Amino acid sequence: MIRFALFGAGRAGRIHARNIARHPRAELVCVCDVDRPAAERVAGEHGARAASDPAAVWRAESIDAVLIASSTDTHVELLRKALGAGKAAYCEKPIDFDLPRVRAVVAEAAATDVPVAVGFRRRALPEYREIRRRIREGEVGAVEVVHLVSRDYRPPSPEYVAVSGGFLRDKTIHYFDLIPWVVGERPAEVYATGSCLVEPWIGEAGDIDTTMVVLRMPSGALCHIDNGRRAVYGFDERVEVFGARGMLRSEPPSVSNVARFGEAGIRHERYPDLYGEESFAGLLDAFILALERGEPPAPSLAEGLQAQLIAEAAVESLRRNRPVAVEY
Amino acid sequence: MIRFALFGAGRAGRIHARNIARHPRAELVCVCDVDRPAAERVAGEHGARAASDPAAVWRAESIDAVLIASSTDTHVELLRKALGAGKAAYCEKPIDFDLPRVRAVVAEAAATDVPVAVGFRRRALPEYREIRRRIREGEVGAVEVVHLVSRDYRPPSPEYVAVSGGFLRDKTIHYFDLIPWVVGERPAEVYATGSCLVEPWIGEAGDIDTTMVVLRMPSGALCHIDNGRRAVYGFDERVEVFGARGMLRSEPPSVSNVARFGEAGIRHERYPDLYGEESFAGLLDAFILALERGEPPAPSLAEGLQAQLIAEAAVESLRRNRPVAVEY
Amino acid sequence: MIRFALFGAGRAGRIHARNIARHPRAELVCVCDVDRPAAERVAGEHGARAASDPAAVWRAESIDAVLIASSTDTHVELLRKALGAGKAAYCEKPIDFDLPRVRAVVAEAAATDVPVAVGFRRRALPEYREIRRRIREGEVGAVEVVHLVSRDYRPPSPEYVAVSGGFLRDKTIHYFDLIPWVVGERPAEVYATGSCLVEPWIGEAGDIDTTMVVLRMPSGALCHIDNGRRAVYGFDERVEVFGARGMLRSEPPSVSNVARFGEAGIRHERYPDLYGEESFAGLLDAFILALERGEPPAPSLAEGLQAQLIAEAAVESLRRNRPVAVEY
Amino acid sequence: MIRFALFGAGRAGRIHARNIARHPRAELVCVCDVDRPAAERVAGEHGARAASDPAAVWRAESIDAVLIASSTDTHVELLRKALGAGKAAYCEKPIDFDLPRVRAVVAEAAATDVPVAVGFRRRALPEYREIRRRIREGEVGAVEVVHLVSRDYRPPSPEYVAVSGGFLRDKTIHYFDLIPWVVGERPAEVYATGSCLVEPWIGEAGDIDTTMVVLRMPSGALCHIDNGRRAVYGFDERVEVFGARGMLRSEPPSVSNVARFGEAGIRHERYPDLYGEESFAGLLDAFILALERGEPPAPSLAEGLQAQLIAEAAVESLRRNRPVAVEY
Repeated sequence: MIRFALFGAGRAGRIHARNIARHPRAELVCVCDVDRPAAERVAGEHGARAASDPAAVWRAESIDAVLIASSTDTHVELLRKALGAGKAAYCEKPIDFDLPRVRAVVAEAAATDVPVAVGFRRRALPEYREIRRRIREGEVGAVEVVHLVSRDYRPPSPEYVAVSGGFLRDKTIHYFDLIPWVVGERPAEVYATGSCLVEPWIGEAGDIDTTMVVLRMPSGALCHIDNGRRAVYGFDERVEVFGARGMLRSEPPSVSNVARFGEAGIRHERYPDLYGEESFAGLLDAFILALERGEPPAPSLAEGLQAQLIAEAAVESLRRNRPVAVEY
Repeated sequence: MIRFALFGAGRAGRIHARNIARHPRAELVCVCDVDRPAAERVAGEHGARAASDPAAVWRAESIDAVLIASSTDTHVELLRKALGAGKAAYCEKPIDFDLPRVRAVVAEAAATDVPVAVGFRRRALPEYREIRRRIREGEVGAVEVVHLVSRDYRPPSPEYVAVSGGFLRDKTIHYFDLIPWVVGERPAEVYATGSCLVEPWIGEAGDIDTTMVVLRMPSGALCHIDNGRRAVYGFDERVEVFGARGMLRSEPPSVSNVARFGEAGIRHERYPDLYGEESFAGLLDAFILALERGEPPAPSLAEGLQAQLIAEAAVESLRRNRPVAVEY
Repeated sequence: MIRFALFGAGRAGRIHARNIARHPRAELVCVCDVDRPAAERVAGEHGARAASDPAAVWRAESIDAVLIASSTDTHVELLRKALGAGKAAYCEKPIDFDLPRVRAVVAEAAATDVPVAVGFRRRALPEYREIRRRIREGEVGAVEVVHLVSRDYRPPSPEYVAVSGGFLRDKTIHYFDLIPWVVGERPAEVYATGSCLVEPWIGEAGDIDTTMVVLRMPSGALCHIDNGRRAVYGFDERVEVFGARGMLRSEPPSVSNVARFGEAGIRHERYPDLYGEESFAGLLDAFILALERGEPPAPSLAEGLQAQLIAEAAVESLRRNRPVAVEY
Repeated sequence: MIRFALFGAGRAGRIHARNIARHPRAELVCVCDVDRPAAERVAGEHGARAASDPAAVWRAESIDAVLIASSTDTHVELLRKALGAGKAAYCEKPIDFDLPRVRAVVAEAAATDVPVAVGFRRRALPEYREIRRRIREGEVGAVEVVHLVSRDYRPPSPEYVAVSGGFLRDKTIHYFDLIPWVVGERPAEVYATGSCLVEPWIGEAGDIDTTMVVLRMPSGALCHIDNGRRAVYGFDERVEVFGARGMLRSEPPSVSNVARFGEAGIRHERYPDLYGEESFAGLLDAFILALERGEPPAPSLAEGLQAQLIAEAAVESLRRNRPVAVEY
């Protein structure tokens, strides 16, 4: 039984609280949040307690691991405390918007054997695990082309966008983590372009809502990411990996395996959202399993940094309108 | 160049006239119909002439073959004349509703070497030809189960139904021809049941518009036909053939290979009609090719009789509400 | 928390034991089996105890419900005891092969308000629930045609077949329960035919492994069941319900939503088995929910009898080779 | 009846010869080629004659139109003669590799009313015509994202590659013509990257065989082209057009609408080639139809130039490794 303290009682925190409480081999011990009533509410829903003194978490023998889902600017400090206290940590992405701080905590973690994971939860999705496995088994031969589409059903709120760090750092970064992990190499160069086509207020806030990114791999493989903030037909995320021996392609599942044949044609319904709450549970489960087995959880802090470095290269490419080499 | 005289300037006749005229190796010489203006109209559309004396057709050296698309009660007489004159004949289905007359003309034809075909045109459809070929190549192993669905988009007119001979003899008979040809054996026993669910006037006319027929083959294979007069989502005809080694399944094609993803889901449009005029052309082409090669055209008159015998067993099964052995 | 005693530690019993133990609102208290070591083994796996005196179950206040998964000939006696003791009961199908005994216990149950369910677990499958709901909402209009295919991946063992009651009573009966529930009326007449095509030993045992059944509904709707014991491409179960306004069709899901495009074509993999252990859990959950809500669980004993009456009519139809009216 | 002289008896010329000969409203009068025996062979196959004096073509009243399928360096000269002689011209792509020459002949043509078309034959494909029409009817709303994949089954010969002008100018140029025509605006900027991954000899010849191109439209719409020289699973060309109201997606059709369900899964076979010879016929037919109707044929010479200008920007982008503005 892994006993968790949860930092953060916001949207992500609430999802994590429920997933920990439901997990057969995990226990939610306490919840910390600067908004004490929020912490109490979330704790109360799952039979946990709100921490009156967060500092006590680090001393508590009844806590095995911390789940860091508080605001991004608090992540590094909490990670440092976890490293110091020897408590396993699962940290929401991104680690921090300040890269030197990220590099520093990655270095600190490397000097310990405290297990730390960063919450890029697409790694836990069965379709991506399967595609990765089948690539490694040689089903497509050498990877030559990757094409990944991801379109949310609806844009997030202006409040969310305002603190998100921008579309590339907030959303596309999932694929900056995913693609190197699936394909087995990390990009040498990034070209990113983007537009504001979905909601004018996103452009007014200095952000984009539609992007295309091309990653060049050292092998010469080319990867394309087509990422947007809205699709009226439902959440749309799919990937195809093409190589010398063939192609693997995932398709977002329909809502059910029941099709309707009517006057308007044959209709399969799509989900409005798909990789939502349940994908949080998948990565949490993988984290717990790694702790139980004494294996390093994934993605590691260093991989979390890697995804951010690719995102920063993409941001610079967008700004300067030219391909940018990624410096790791 | 095969030179045709066409008997019948009704719906089927007009389609055949155009197909003959368009065929690169066929010529429409003359058109005969008791409705002389109709014959003139159809002939005029394709640079042919209306026959002033139909009897002259049989003497004319300029005629190689006759296409019999006149009313069913005239088929046998025309076939006899064609056999006597040594002219190849393509006869629309059914041969005749009177089985002794059919048996007689089949016997007469067997005593000549005049090539005669009956117009069960599903035999010319590429999907059925492919499934038959792949069965023969052993792809599904021994055939155990066949399931065939056929639903028209809209019911025909009351006038059509009145002279059709009934649903089983008019429509389901296509599959009584098709299934033995595809599977390689003919049914020993037939069970048919049916309802009038689509249009009350069909029931009032003593007919059904929805039927299920089960055919038992000598090998023990079981075949099911699910046949109806209406489908709001478009013409629906498909077959699956299942055996020890797998299954082959055809699916009616969508109108185009463009799918629409909208708020209501993913939409593929179906054809309102599919095996219409172009399927006439396919069997005509096969007939012409057989004549050119000196091979017997298919389906033969004997096969035309066979389909009718199965249909009659189905009609009797429906009437007596029990399975009926087919006597060939 | 519903506290269960389980009767039967065989294959079905073991699945039920695990499902009860895993259920968040159920508890497995004890396991009874004439094979005492088997009962102890199953009980031990889930922290329950083997009942030393099965009779004590009926007096025990710590038992709310019994799950009857013992051999078929014991069901009625156990049901009677449950009715007498006022304990809710979930009974595996069939209730008993002796119809008068079944009628008697159905009558007894009707005179009490003890909740009893029969384990036709397809009712819990989401695709069937969805199709039923959408039919009721009028999506296809009046139902005219149903076509259900069910093919297992591999035949069961000779031992299983020997005590199964025959293919129609063992397997096809699932659809004799399912179709009336989905469609909203029960068949007036049944025609069944069958063959032994998969394994000769099945025929030697006097059974069939391939069947086609046609059900005629009072409304005139026609339903077809195409049921077999083996499909090399994996478990294949699907239904289409067609009506005046369109069609709903379920399709067995592929193993994953990843397709492989290779030299041999595009490949989607199917499951070898699908409606196995997890479908047991679905109906158990529905049973528990009904108890919690004070609603009658489904399928009821009377519905269990109904499915058996249809199955008996099918058996008689197969034997006599003619359609048989179902007497309820 | 449009009477054609054909220039060029190579691969494309032979296809055009046959398509002209087969066309019901066209006639192949003569064939010109510097390889006189080749011209005679092609002419002989279709009942035409080899031109003994090509110059006579321009004076012949029996010639209405010329089809220019000779080597690229001869196109401009032949176009000029056609303009001078007032003969309609269908010119294979590209017009010429020398852009000033192309600009000059475009200007000359603009000063006449001689109908001239350039052979970007994807415009005649029904799926692209349908998508374009449906976009114009507003089905997807404002276009935001286009993604086009095109992968040949097998790479062409080294001889072909050597004179092709390079992958972007030879193959990707089809989509530089297609996308602006489908979407309704032409790109402001192009980013192209590429690799040699399929055949080392292609790289040794200074070319690429795998490319990704991103087009930025003035509206902010982003278009991606993923183009390669080989796909083991068959020819793969498809497009998706995404906008505010939904998405249209074409899918390459399977070889037949028969699927095989076997031990290895469900298999749909793809074509090795698809947009081959028949796509030549489609654009030829559109050309003939335009001449008959007195409408300007498409794509126009100016559009042919436009596609080349985009291709040149792509070539420069690839060489300089940065996005390049297209100058029209």
